[in-house]
Amino acid sequence: MIVELISVGTEILLGNIVNTNAAYLAEQCASLGLSCYHQSVVGDNEARLTETLALALSRSDIVILSGGLGPTGDDLTKEVTAKAFKRKLKEDLHTKERIQEYFDQIHSKKITENNWKQALVPEGAIVVDNYNGTAPGLILTGEIDGEEKTAILLPGPPGEIRPMFERDIYPYLSGRQPEGIYSYMVKICGIGESQVETTISDLIQKQENPTIAPYAKIGEVHLRLTARAEDEVAADALMQPVLTELYARFGEHIFTTKEEITLEETVVDLLWQEGMTVTTAESCTGGLLAGRIINVPGASDIYREGYITYADEAKEKLLGVRPETLSNVGAVSEDTAAEMARGAMEKAGADASVSVTGIAGPDGGTKEKPVGLVYIGCCVKHNLRVEEFHFTGNREKNRDYAVVRALTLLREELLKYKSGEET
Amino acid sequence: MIVELISVGTEILLGNIVNTNAAYLAEQCASLGLSCYHQSVVGDNEARLTETLALALSRSDIVILSGGLGPTGDDLTKEVTAKAFKRKLKEDLHTKERIQEYFDQIHSKKITENNWKQALVPEGAIVVDNYNGTAPGLILTGEIDGEEKTAILLPGPPGEIRPMFERDIYPYLSGRQPEGIYSYMVKICGIGESQVETTISDLIQKQENPTIAPYAKIGEVHLRLTARAEDEVAADALMQPVLTELYARFGEHIFTTKEEITLEETVVDLLWQEGMTVTTAESCTGGLLAGRIINVPGASDIYREGYITYADEAKEKLLGVRPETLSNVGAVSEDTAAEMARGAMEKAGADASVSVTGIAGPDGGTKEKPVGLVYIGCCVKHNLRVEEFHFTGNREKNRDYAVVRALTLLREELLKYKSGEET
Repeated sequence: MIVELISVGTEILLGNIVNTNAAYLAEQCASLGLSCYHQSVVGDNEARLTETLALALSRSDIVILSGGLGPTGDDLTKEVTAKAFKRKLKEDLHTKERIQEYFDQIHSKKITENNWKQALVPEGAIVVDNYNGTAPGLILTGEIDGEEKTAILLPGPPGEIRPMFERDIYPYLSGRQPEGIYSYMVKICGIGESQVETTISDLIQKQENPTIAPYAKIGEVHLRLTARAEDEVAADALMQPVLTELYARFGEHIFTTKEEITLEETVVDLLWQEGMTVTTAESCTGGLLAGRIINVPGASDIYREGYITYADEAKEKLLGVRPETLSNVGAVSEDTAAEMARGAMEKAGADASVSVTGIAGPDGGTKEKPVGLVYIGCCVKHNLRVEEFHFTGNREKNRDYAVVRALTLLREELLKYKSGEET
Repeated sequence: MIVELISVGTEILLGNIVNTNAAYLAEQCASLGLSCYHQSVVGDNEARLTETLALALSRSDIVILSGGLGPTGDDLTKEVTAKAFKRKLKEDLHTKERIQEYFDQIHSKKITENNWKQALVPEGAIVVDNYNGTAPGLILTGEIDGEEKTAILLPGPPGEIRPMFERDIYPYLSGRQPEGIYSYMVKICGIGESQVETTISDLIQKQENPTIAPYAKIGEVHLRLTARAEDEVAADALMQPVLTELYARFGEHIFTTKEEITLEETVVDLLWQEGMTVTTAESCTGGLLAGRIINVPGASDIYREGYITYADEAKEKLLGVRPETLSNVGAVSEDTAAEMARGAMEKAGADASVSVTGIAGPDGGTKEKPVGLVYIGCCVKHNLRVEEFHFTGNREKNRDYAVVRALTLLREELLKYKSGEET
């Protein structure tokens, strides 16, 4: 089945916002095994939207439109789509009630006449409830030029479209597929993208069902494993041998096989299982590592305090780094990273610690210590490990990479500690 | 003049990458005063690319294609575009030499037969040198169905397309415009989007030249002021009265009129001007505020150390928050924010401080202290100010908003201090 995406909104045409909805929908459709050959963006203009929709409906089975469902006169997606399917708009009582409830909930806002426009739906459309806003989603199916076509209309805000897609549209599309689509997201850390691709190039070459698609993220590589099968059991039978093979090749570098799990969550979870706490001592990342850890709900069980020690004196004062170390080998060095990690663990009374010190750029680099040089230290109980990294991005990228490498190092040391306990 | 964007690449259709090139090109075209009504994405497929390009050339004056200029057989953008303009491909010696030089430079890679494909250019095309890769940019102009049309072909990697656009394509497009386009980006903090829009709705209503376009960012509103004029002096004459009017309405809420300046940079700059240092004490933002400040190059002059105090005990131990305060009014309270800010300033020996304590969610909210309640404290020398905020996003959004509000508060207090000095 062929699907096509149309994003409606002047703010995308102006480059005001990046079209993350299209990337989200495209990835979801790919994971459902739907083929997608075209994406387009068009403004809230009746003639142009009509033309764009007609072209999409002529060449694809399902067209997903996002945006243009707002309450103002500018918003035309529903009107234009209804016309394409030759349907009239009529008031939907259920949606009207939901809009009323939504406004009752948020108190502060008053319903305007405009808002009731959102309760109008094309005749025969499936109405999909919006739990995060007032514009319902709509699914319209009908014959156009002798072929059955479907249009799916979704609200534009990411906070509305994503939960709606997950809850109702994904199951709907999945049901339209002759076979079910099942997938794992195999997430790998501590190995570069090209090495991952080389390691599995034979698997990618001979892939059929399941398929394997690599996705590079900052410091991580994700492999989406997708099988088409009658049911989950049959899909799992197809995927388990490949999963086993991937584990044989990547071992503990695989930190999860679930789409929704993040690297920091697996780290927080490991700490939690062991009943351990962690602290952080950051120089060049300046709080971003702690920020990532604390973004995991429930982090308060494993994280109590952390230190941002940007200046040399702060490293001495807060972490007890020795002045000789700083004057002999400098703040960006293996020794300083080691003393930062040890000092932080002691001062915080934590069971583990991670330290980061480096030159993020754009200035501060020398021939011996170039921009991108970063040392990361990690203590788990009394085991200390320090690693040297050379990143090649700009200031922001270098710091993002350092954060992911720090989480990866902490994870490795926690796993090592855990396996030591078991033996 | 009407411009249209075509992004070529299967990885965008699969949702493997977000189409940031389109957003970049769209914003650049908008700032050049070019109208853009359509964007599309298509894979490396000859028939579909041919059709998509034909449609774009039929309705727009200039079509910018990005991607599909690589050395492999899959890459077809050049071939398809040459056909549309009825041009043959021929080898370009200059480009051949540049490819040779590029490979000489990076040593590690060997030239393959494929690479020479990138030296083929359509007859009569303007060749645009690529300083960050091997595929040159190309500009093709010619008559199609009796009208003059232009296709601009650019490489896909953001690290190649952006410097190439800035260096050669922007000036080319600017030269094609009958008048020059000049703009200011008026950036506003501390006022919500809807209030900004209401305040300037009369200006937007009657806008002609210059135009005003609002862009909402997290916690900030940006107004792009664009004038068409013969030269910069004439453009400034048109824009200055509007700028004066905007300053009259928003005053010090405007933190810059320059595109490239960020809020944190203006804050770091204020501290730097006053010769002051700042520290941070963060609970729910867990290091993100410090991370933003330290992301400004040269932040080491104004920031030495900071504290992440997630647990109550850490607030007592590191910042000297009184146990009575925590037990009487709790960690998320005006008093705790005040004691955190004062304590941090003292402990760090800094001239200013910002503290953040709140409930980011998803758990931990109560009826009295709901998710999204955040207190931000700010000390500048001996002046203390605490503000209460109610955010309504998810955990991540609430923390991002808190960071921007904290920077805004610090900026306001620094301005107040500075004006007190002057009087």
